[in-house]
Amino acid sequence: MNDLLLRACRREPVERPPVWMMRQAGRYLPEYRAVRARADFLTMVRTPELAVEVTLQPVDLLEVDAAIIFSDILVVPQAMGMALSVDEGVGPRFHHPLATPADVARLRDVAPEESLGYTLDALRLARRELGGRVPLIGFAGAPWTLASYMIEGTGTRTFARAKAFLARHPAEAHGLLQRLATAVGDFLVAQVAAGAQVVQLFDSWAGALAPADFRAFALPYLAGAARRARSAGAPVIVFAPGAGWALEEIAQATGADVIGVDWQVEPGAARRRLAAHPVAVQGNLDPCWLYAPPREIARRTRAMLDAFGGRGYIANLGHGILPDVPVAHARAFVDAVREWRSTEAAR
Amino acid sequence: MNDLLLRACRREPVERPPVWMMRQAGRYLPEYRAVRARADFLTMVRTPELAVEVTLQPVDLLEVDAAIIFSDILVVPQAMGMALSVDEGVGPRFHHPLATPADVARLRDVAPEESLGYTLDALRLARRELGGRVPLIGFAGAPWTLASYMIEGTGTRTFARAKAFLARHPAEAHGLLQRLATAVGDFLVAQVAAGAQVVQLFDSWAGALAPADFRAFALPYLAGAARRARSAGAPVIVFAPGAGWALEEIAQATGADVIGVDWQVEPGAARRRLAAHPVAVQGNLDPCWLYAPPREIARRTRAMLDAFGGRGYIANLGHGILPDVPVAHARAFVDAVREWRSTEAAR
Repeated sequence: MNDLLLRACRREPVERPPVWMMRQAGRYLPEYRAVRARADFLTMVRTPELAVEVTLQPVDLLEVDAAIIFSDILVVPQAMGMALSVDEGVGPRFHHPLATPADVARLRDVAPEESLGYTLDALRLARRELGGRVPLIGFAGAPWTLASYMIEGTGTRTFARAKAFLARHPAEAHGLLQRLATAVGDFLVAQVAAGAQVVQLFDSWAGALAPADFRAFALPYLAGAARRARSAGAPVIVFAPGAGWALEEIAQATGADVIGVDWQVEPGAARRRLAAHPVAVQGNLDPCWLYAPPREIARRTRAMLDAFGGRGYIANLGHGILPDVPVAHARAFVDAVREWRSTEAAR
Repeated sequence: MNDLLLRACRREPVERPPVWMMRQAGRYLPEYRAVRARADFLTMVRTPELAVEVTLQPVDLLEVDAAIIFSDILVVPQAMGMALSVDEGVGPRFHHPLATPADVARLRDVAPEESLGYTLDALRLARRELGGRVPLIGFAGAPWTLASYMIEGTGTRTFARAKAFLARHPAEAHGLLQRLATAVGDFLVAQVAAGAQVVQLFDSWAGALAPADFRAFALPYLAGAARRARSAGAPVIVFAPGAGWALEEIAQATGADVIGVDWQVEPGAARRRLAAHPVAVQGNLDPCWLYAPPREIARRTRAMLDAFGGRGYIANLGHGILPDVPVAHARAFVDAVREWRSTEAAR
């Protein structure tokens, strides 16, 4: 049983850091595209057999040290009653974005076993099929990120609608964020009960907010969800890309076991800034460097590992792997981690 | 003659900080939309009378303390031979993005008076029509930002093509960036000769790069363009949104007179971090807060001014004003600055 990930989360000694990649069950894999040719994205998410098939692919094909359940952060708003489409390459789209406080009031609360049972079933099946080979990760989107998608309806560069909602309806925005924190926390607790051994919270749009707004509208609800999830007993990873300025505050407020670091923060700086906090770190190669020749990928990966050090560290990209990266390049990244040894790693 | 901007750039005493807004000549103004109804975006840019008409509108209508010439950062790649369309609301698009080193080799060098004469003519006309009322700002895009647009062809969230080009063709990428630094520097020198009293360099996509890559592919060329521009004798503002982590390095490398600050950096932190550098600062209200009620806009603007302090400071947004902001809300921002007085401001 490869338990490198679990030991890294607890900052215990490891022979080498574990490695996995955000969005590792994805379109860069021909085997994923073969499944995707038979079913659309949300059908894959909602069909445990299909979700588990692609969840296991990178474990089999690339020998990564963790499986992450195939799902989407927007299943929670969908479970609250928002009609959702996902066209890969275009992105997700809510048919009726939240425009007014009345729209917010119409949302349903979420009972995970009822409305998100397909992901819990997928976790149970994945745990069985993994048979202890590598740990299984569950995940969810953080409240601010979900709320901004629900208001924008789709991806955005300015977040003008979502932030206008905060500016015009602050009380209702806080109400929505609180409901999302509860829903997300409950969902993660249910995921752990269903077999997730680690859970990750993605606050993907944290970088859209100025510091004062992040502290008002994102961090308290991210922390609420993380602390609720943590009560289930599995390590919690918190990843807030674009908010590298806030690493210390995120560690402090969320009580997370692991802090994800995006590629805009230098590994050495992340380590120094988090040294006073009882956390492991995860990250952070810019996924675009997987376009470089494999030798350059290996060189950059080793430099990253040297800078982060071997203990309390999970090697990963600083963002999801991109769909047109050659599989051999993804493998060069994974292999560079698997072959790396630090003098301090085994301590 | 209102020379608050010039004095602020030189960190001289002022009665109050000057205020202008990035993209202040823009769609939020009905008077702008009236001109736009008669001519498309690039025709406005290329017709000095139209460009000057919209350049002056915010001075007349909002009493901002500076005019910024109406143009677009992508006129430089266009002058290098790249066919460009701009559909407002959709964004700019190059018809044939750079895909290979051979595409780069085919680009022309730029002689500003020949291929960018329309903007220089607009500056000359704007200076005349302003009659000394407020200073006139010229601008250009920084090399990395221009190169990434030229490779991507249009806006992007991942910058995968642009960064893949860096990863696959680093030598040719450096060659392109060097040519852009020369072109942009020359263009800014020509703008000052034509009447621009301050120039701003926009490295709008600085945030797309990890620190090591920013230092390799963006900062040296931003600095090259800024130093070349500075030789013309007018103050240079450098704005690299998304790279707030690099404020000190940008100040050091570029020798800029003013460092622009995006909304993700707290005013007090920006001041502290730049205290050892001989620079003024500009920024940084999140433009989305102009959706808030005017009283809240005024409150936040005053808090920003209190935090930045009155001396060596240019009040601005942390990004361009958005097209659907009510004019009254833009005015609430400008008025809050015009009415603000600090005990230290007049020192």
